[in-house]
Order: sequence, then C-alpha cells, then structure tokens
Amino acid sequence: MELENIKSPRDIKGLGDEELEKIARQMREAVLNRTSQIGGHVGPNLGAVETIIAMHYVFDAPTDRLVYDVSHQAFPHKMLTGRVNGYLYRQDFSKVGEYTSPVESPEYDIFWAGHTSPALSLCVGLAKARDLKKDNYNVVALVGDGALSGGEAFEGLDAGGALNSNLICIINDNQMSIAENHGGIYEHLRHLRETNGTAPDNLFKAFNWDYLYVAEGNNVKKLIEALEKVKGSKKPVVVHVNTQKGEGYTPAEEYREAFHYRDPYDIATGELLIVQEGPTSTTVLKDFINRSARKYHNFLAISSATPDSFGLNAREREMLGEHYIDVGIAEQTGVSVMAGAARDGAKVVYSVVATFLQRAYDQLVEDWAMDPSPALMVVAATGVKGEKDQTHLGFWDIPMITSVPEIVYLAPANLEEFEAMLEWGLSQDKFKVAVREPVYSVEHADYEVDKDYSDLNKFRVLKEGKEVAIIAAGDFLIKGRQVVELLKAQGIEATLINPRFISGVDKELLANLPAQHKIVVTIEDGSLEGGFGQRIASALGTSGLKVLNYGLEKKFVDRFKLKDLEEANHLLPEQIAGEILKELK
Amino acid sequence: MELENIKSPRDIKGLGDEELEKIARQMREAVLNRTSQIGGHVGPNLGAVETIIAMHYVFDAPTDRLVYDVSHQAFPHKMLTGRVNGYLYRQDFSKVGEYTSPVESPEYDIFWAGHTSPALSLCVGLAKARDLKKDNYNVVALVGDGALSGGEAFEGLDAGGALNSNLICIINDNQMSIAENHGGIYEHLRHLRETNGTAPDNLFKAFNWDYLYVAEGNNVKKLIEALEKVKGSKKPVVVHVNTQKGEGYTPAEEYREAFHYRDPYDIATGELLIVQEGPTSTTVLKDFINRSARKYHNFLAISSATPDSFGLNAREREMLGEHYIDVGIAEQTGVSVMAGAARDGAKVVYSVVATFLQRAYDQLVEDWAMDPSPALMVVAATGVKGEKDQTHLGFWDIPMITSVPEIVYLAPANLEEFEAMLEWGLSQDKFKVAVREPVYSVEHADYEVDKDYSDLNKFRVLKEGKEVAIIAAGDFLIKGRQVVELLKAQGIEATLINPRFISGVDKELLANLPAQHKIVVTIEDGSLEGGFGQRIASALGTSGLKVLNYGLEKKFVDRFKLKDLEEANHLLPEQIAGEILKELK
Repeated sequence: MELENIKSPRDIKGLGDEELEKIARQMREAVLNRTSQIGGHVGPNLGAVETIIAMHYVFDAPTDRLVYDVSHQAFPHKMLTGRVNGYLYRQDFSKVGEYTSPVESPEYDIFWAGHTSPALSLCVGLAKARDLKKDNYNVVALVGDGALSGGEAFEGLDAGGALNSNLICIINDNQMSIAENHGGIYEHLRHLRETNGTAPDNLFKAFNWDYLYVAEGNNVKKLIEALEKVKGSKKPVVVHVNTQKGEGYTPAEEYREAFHYRDPYDIATGELLIVQEGPTSTTVLKDFINRSARKYHNFLAISSATPDSFGLNAREREMLGEHYIDVGIAEQTGVSVMAGAARDGAKVVYSVVATFLQRAYDQLVEDWAMDPSPALMVVAATGVKGEKDQTHLGFWDIPMITSVPEIVYLAPANLEEFEAMLEWGLSQDKFKVAVREPVYSVEHADYEVDKDYSDLNKFRVLKEGKEVAIIAAGDFLIKGRQVVELLKAQGIEATLINPRFISGVDKELLANLPAQHKIVVTIEDGSLEGGFGQRIASALGTSGLKVLNYGLEKKFVDRFKLKDLEEANHLLPEQIAGEILKELK
Repeated sequence: MELENIKSPRDIKGLGDEELEKIARQMREAVLNRTSQIGGHVGPNLGAVETIIAMHYVFDAPTDRLVYDVSHQAFPHKMLTGRVNGYLYRQDFSKVGEYTSPVESPEYDIFWAGHTSPALSLCVGLAKARDLKKDNYNVVALVGDGALSGGEAFEGLDAGGALNSNLICIINDNQMSIAENHGGIYEHLRHLRETNGTAPDNLFKAFNWDYLYVAEGNNVKKLIEALEKVKGSKKPVVVHVNTQKGEGYTPAEEYREAFHYRDPYDIATGELLIVQEGPTSTTVLKDFINRSARKYHNFLAISSATPDSFGLNAREREMLGEHYIDVGIAEQTGVSVMAGAARDGAKVVYSVVATFLQRAYDQLVEDWAMDPSPALMVVAATGVKGEKDQTHLGFWDIPMITSVPEIVYLAPANLEEFEAMLEWGLSQDKFKVAVREPVYSVEHADYEVDKDYSDLNKFRVLKEGKEVAIIAAGDFLIKGRQVVELLKAQGIEATLINPRFISGVDKELLANLPAQHKIVVTIEDGSLEGGFGQRIASALGTSGLKVLNYGLEKKFVDRFKLKDLEEANHLLPEQIAGEILKELK
C-alpha cells in the first residue's frame, strides 16, 4: 500500500507493522513536500504521524469521533481521510486547509478547532449527545502541542472527570508548545516521562481519569497496543504519549521552535527561501523591548507562547532574564499577569496575537480595564494581512477591544508612529493602552509623529481639503492616501485624517466637518460591525453629512486571496473613490 | 475589642483566641445584619470569617498583598480594613460594595476581582513586580467558593508552579460553588478532605506547589498556626482549608444554594421578605426547559454553575436527570459542550449570565459560530436592570455577541415573544441562536408574536407612522411606546418598530424609511459602542435621514440608582422625545 492510494481509513486496517511504518515515512515526506513549498506547521505534524496512524487503525472513524486539538497537527489525519493529494501535488495544496474543517470534510472533521484547548470540552458535548441517543461509539481527543496550558483544557479535564462514560484523551506530549512550555504542568509531564508514567501526584488521576503511559510515542506498534487497551473504555482515560516534535527531519528536530510553523524552505538545509530584510513592525517592537529592559529596572515583557510576535529569539529571551515571562498558551493569564504586575508599578508590555486575545475578553474587562493597572498591550497579526485561516482571522479585535471601557486602542499608520506609541504607552502611568501593530504595509511617516497621546481621541488632519473627508485608520491610512489621489485626479481636494485612536471619536473635529464637507468616509482594516467607522456614523447621525464606512463584512472567510477579499468588501481605492464620486453627484 | 471599633488590621494583632472568636461572632452578625436588609452574599462570607481573620492576623496588609477570588467572600476583610460601618449601619450600607474595590480602598483592595478564577494569575503579576523591585513581602490569594473550576484558576496554578518565589494560595474549600460543584476536581478535593490531605495524586503538588491541609477551617487558632508556617515561603504553597459555607447560621448551613446570594430576608427564619408572584421571564424559561425535556429524547440543558438562571431548583434539576449538566463555573466549557453536543444532533439549551459569558468569547467565535452546531443560548441578567455591580454589568453582551459572525441574536420584547423565540431556537437545526432574556419589564404582547424567525433580520413594524421612526430593541420596546405616546401628544404619529434581531439590520425596511420619515431613533438596553444602534446609523449613512442612537455610554458604573443612570444616558422617554422634537425643528 502506498500513501497516495489511501482513500479512507479502512485502507490501513489490517496492514502489518512494516507497511504502517512505510506509510509513516511517506507521510513525513508529504508533510515536508507541502510545507516546504507553501509553508505550514512542520514539527507538530511530523511528531504526530504514528499517533494518528494508530488512532485510525484502532478506532473506526467516522463512527468513532476523532477530535484534534490543536488541529494544526492533523495533516496525517487528512492524508488518511481522502485528502492526501493536498500534500502530494502542488495544484491540490489549496484544496486542503491547515486545520480540520467540517466544510472540507463533514464526515471526518468534527470541528475546526484551530485554537488550542477546547477539545475535551467539545468531546464532553459529543459524549453527552452519544449517551442521550444510547449509542456506544468512542469519543477520542488528540490533545497536544502545548494545548494543555490553556485554561479550557483543564476545565475539560474537570468536566470529563465527572462524566461516567466513554471519553479517551490522547496527550501528544512533544515536550514543548510553540516555544518553550512554561509552567508547573510541563515540569510534571517531565516527571511522568522520566518515571515511565509512575511519578506521584498524577495530574490526570487527580481529575478522576484513568491513565496509561506510552514511552515510545513514535512507535506505531506500541501505540496500537495502547489504544486497543482503552478502546471501548466505559470511563474517561488519558493515554499519555511521549513523542518527538519534528521527528524524522533533522532541521525540525534541532530547531523545534523555528519549525513549529515554517514559511517556505529548502528541504535539504531547512533554510527559508525568502528572508525579510530591513525594518518591519516586528524589528521596531523588538528594539523597543530591548531598549526598555535597559531603561526600566522593573520592566516586564509578557508572552503567551508567541515570543515571535515580539521578534525575540531564544537567545534574546534568555538575555532578558527576569524581565521576560512566557505564561504558555494562556491568554487569560497573560492579561491578568499584565494587570497584576502593573498594579504594583512594574512597566509591563504584553504582546499577543489578535485571534488568541479572544480568549481573554473577560480579563480585559474585569482585570485590566477596571483596575488601576496602566500597562501596554501590543496586538499582533491584525487585519487582512494578519492571518488567512478562518480560525485565525485578525478581523475582530477592533470590535472586541473597543467595546471595553477605559482601554485606549491606538492604530499607528507607520513604523515611526508605532514606535512613538509604544514609547508613550510604556512611559505613562495613567492609561491602559493597546497598540495595533501595523501589518498591511511597511510605511514610513512623511510627517512628524506625535510623542504624546495623553490628549485622548485627538484625530490628526494630515491634509486639509473640502467636500470629502477621509478618515483612514491605522495601516489602512495608505488606502486613504490612494483615494485622495484618485479624487484629486477628478478635481476634488479631499481632507485626509489619521485618527490614531480607534476606541473613541474626536467630537470636536467631527463637529467642524460639516462646514466644508458633504461626505465623510471611514476606512479600517477589520470587521465593520462594532468597529471604528460605525462609531463615526453614529456620532455624525444628526450632522447632515453622508457617511460611508469601509471595512470587512462580518463573515468568516478561509484562506482567501487578498485581492479577492478586498474587492468583495469594496476596499480597493478605485472602488472607494468611485462610490464617493457617485454619492457626490 | 469590639468589631465596631476596629479601624485597621493592626487592631487585631496580638488578640487572644477568645477575643478573635468573639470578633468572628460579631462579624457573622454583621453579615446577617446587612444582607438581610439589602441582600448580598451570605454563605460565602459566613464561611470565610475565620480564614480572613487569620490572614489579617498573620500577614501585614497592606504591605503583604491579599487578593480575594471571588471577592464576594471578602466582607470580613472589609470589616477589618476600616469599613465595618458598611455592615452595621443602614445609612452606611451603600458606601460599601459587594466586591473588593480599589476605588473604595486603594490601600487594601488590590483588585475588583468580581469574577471568579483570576486571582492566581493576578498574583503571579504581583509577585513578578515585587521580585523585580527586589522586595520581599507576601503575595496571598484566597481562592474559593467554586473559583477552582474556572480555567484561569488552573492556568494560574500552572504559571504559579513555574514561579520560584513567594506565592501563597489559600483554598477556601467550602465543598460547593454557587450550586453543586461539578467535575473531577471536586471529587478530588473530597478525597483530600477525607484523608486529612494525604490522598494520592495531589493536584496542587502536580502543579509543583507545596501543600498544607487545615481540617478545621473555621477554627481561627488552627488557621493562624497554619498560616504562620507558610508566611515568608520562598516557593508557591497551597493551604487547603476545609470550611463550612454558611457556618454559624442555620438556614445558610441547611440551604446553601439559596443562601449563596440572598435577597432581603427575615433573620429568624431565613424566609425572603418579598416573594415574586406570577409569570416572569424565568418561569417562561423554566417551563420551556421542562416541556422540552419531555419533547426531545436527546434534549440537553447546560448550566455553568448558575442553575437559577434557568429557574430550576435542586429537585427539578434532579428530575431532568441525564438531560441536565452543570459544568461548574466554566463558561468556556459551557459553550464548547453546547457546540459539541449540538454537533452530534442533541437539542441543546445553554443558559448563561451575560457578564460571565465574557469568559467564553473565543469559544463563541471558534467553537460555536464556525462549526455546524445549531443550538440555543439564553443570555440572562442583561441591561440596566440585570446587575448593578460594576463587575457584573450586563451592558456588553450586544457588542460582544453581535461582533461574531453566524450567531443570530434575538431580543424579545415581552414574555410571549421570549417563549416563541425559545421554541423556534430549539426546534430549528440551521442557526446558532442566542436569545436575550427580557429583564427591564414583565410585558405581555399586545400583538400576535411570530413563531418562525428563520427569515433573518426581519424587523417588525408595530405601528405605521411618519416623520419619526423609532426602533426600540428588546425589553426597551416599552420605552419606544412611551416615546410614541409623548410625540403623539405633540401631534406626531411616529412609526414604532420592534427589530427582534439585534445582530443584523433589515436593509429592505431601512431603505423604505426615507419616503415618509426624517428621523430614525434607536433605543437599546446596553452599551452603545459596537451595539445595535450604531449598525443602523451606519446602514443609513447615505440615506439623508437623521439618526439618533440611545443606549448606555461605554463606561463602568457601580451600584447605580436606575433613574440616575437612565437620566445620565438620556434614556428617559421625556428626554428622548424632547431631543427628537428639537431635531425636527
């Protein structure tokens, strides 16, 4: 049997160990084939190959429910469920996404599960549904790759432990998450590995689960034996599997953090095909962090398992010493540690990926905004160029953050403004400041940027004009400029405004617009509903001005082409200019 | 020493056991004195009296940092830190809030912490700030009353376990949260209690914390001895204290759920002073749940430790049997269990208090909205009459929920519409439906309510008029009616619209408004920014109509007077009508 001939999990049933090992080797090649060309999660999938083969060998999907957490380790599952071409042939790559998807495979992919830690709770739901219909298939979660540090994973262990029914949790313990695994539990997993699963104070047993340890987690035979033992279990059981992240590919075994997710690379050497040069928002942030660590004795940089959003490599993090803390994949704790340290005067920066900050909405409201905890939060990977997978869109941060009182959300339009906002945000001790890292274009300011943003909600007019006022927020300022140019070609000298603040409106500036303008246009790099522009529309509700809001429709989109997305949302400058001209008539 | 003379924690230092016990008795009387008159958390505070006395006896606040989680058990702390009059004298009750508050006591109240589970993460932040300034005071959290089931508590145990420094976590184990404690961990705590702390597989040790058990958690002497042992500890340590919820007051000991939070009651009998009669939204929901359990073999009602939001008492929950699950204080899991069970066809209702749903924003986006999991979520305690404590405001649910694609958020205006929406939401298998429980007034419909809401975003015109169109959402429809009446008195026959859908706009209806109207007014029972009305303003941006949005300013308010809040936000019908008339001129 060759990997490319596998159409469904049935095709591997009954194969001998050697054949399964051959398929495992071919799977590894397929993972490298795809990710080296279009990028993707390398290490997590290489590590999980044998585990997933064993899962499909022992369990009977789709009758048995297999859930992946986080589902970026599920490439081998996709290869066994009719989607192997998405890893073998370039023309088929785009047909298969990075995560499990009920759209892609309604039969085999139960959930998207693109964020870590929900699997056990989702599986408690599946198990309840099964028990209510008096059925008896297996509900199986593969939990790994750092997902155990997220609070919901523990909630799920807790809820699962109270479920007197079949529920199987396979822990893919590859000894790290994206970067290091931090926190007490990873110390505990190490104890368990070092004692062949016999260390005292077993966390999983504490939660009322049975427990089984598999030392050779990249040995398909051993895995099959273990899973056969728990199949049909009538109570929750954890199978703790010791795997190697990046198994079978030397660069990924050696540079595990770099090969968690990798942009296109040379398979022979592991080197990236394209290396970014020159200053970017990430280099600005990284320099700011290193500078601040020297400047403030009580400086603290916090990451929740995404140190790359700071641009800091392992050596630089080590250099920061006590000034750096990684709380693991645990954004709730990221926000609360920020608020807690700030409460006692520390100079705190928390850098977080927009889509993951969703996990900490409550902490933003209850632990940061409300308390006297001035600190700086940097929100990364926002907007249309932030992330392209449906599960990771950076479209919702503006509605989310700006619905919370007391948080000042700043959207810098260029690198200089980004740097100035970071400096101000950390130096001041009055406000809770969030800064939206500019992603859309690496712009330099052609104006002197302000150093002080304590005069809240003060928009800045970059060009005085009339008839049309364009308020273009953050990294979409460039679109505002382009629209101004297009209108100029039609004889209209439009006003261009950089709002800088997206969590409030400049009432004074808005009140002065009707004198010279007929139309106000807002442009923002995020979801329209609940966003920046709708606030402007509301504030101008009785002004007599027409208002046009541009941004993204409230809608999930997956692995989109940028141009298509912009066009569908009328975000191309020519579209915006055209619609303004139509309204002016 | 009498309780009423205590001005600061120093006043109890050096007191003998008997005097401390006397103060404990007086504290219990003071708790009953206040809560019986104005309502409040009874059981949690009665149970924590001795623990908090011992904390203040052993540690030196404010130098040592004492953090309460959840802070509704902190009445004894307030009594020892200069706020005892707020429990003794009716005229002073309003000066003291239900939760710790850095506004009320910047010195002694470190955080608001009105939601459960953040304390350990907050304390990791405090400890980091302390260590960076090379100081050496104690950082102490009192965690209890169910807070251990929330995911962030485990994240905090995890992050704390990696902190090689002073951090003391006192677990107030009163053997229940609001209702029952569900989940594997409560079984484990029981094992620990039954073995005097020696049961195997100690959860806290698994997280790399030291551990100490105190069997007599309402014995102040034993508690002082235990805390003296851990004071100054150089590594994280858990002190597991076995307390009795409601200790010392027979009705609270017997009816622990009813006395978690109690409306005003007779101290002698424990009976409520005012008992609600007649149908309310809660009785509508409860009847619906019981009816649905009989109707659907695979019906599942989910609660996250607030079964009272269903209106179900312990006996009724028991009757529901396998059709009811309480996941503990764990809303992330609440949403994921809902999504999981719905994914496999179960008929699912999840009832959740608006302010607590904040903890599950990510799960709404990633686990529910995205997946094919049609289910029904009921959002309780919303709007200006929902909750009055700053930490529990039901003001943010509309921005939060309506920023998420795919979730249909319905706002019934009266009991009949509420019931119809519940029935439709559960019977259909296409949409993810959230229903906002009407709170502001117990209205009955004076029109035939629709049974089917599958024609999304279809607003309903209740009265055709002209010049002014009033779109009054949900339980603020009554305000719309009142404004219509006031305008009528001025000779204006306004149009009245019940939108029903608050997560989208009826574009067709809006497009027809300009023909007969000059002004559109929206009224909603929640925060304006990111809310319903701003969507309408945006949708009407080029219509030429004036738009007035009414709702709440984005601002924290604490223990407000309803009339004051409404007036400050221009929500009184006469204010709205007056401003409309001004715009019409």
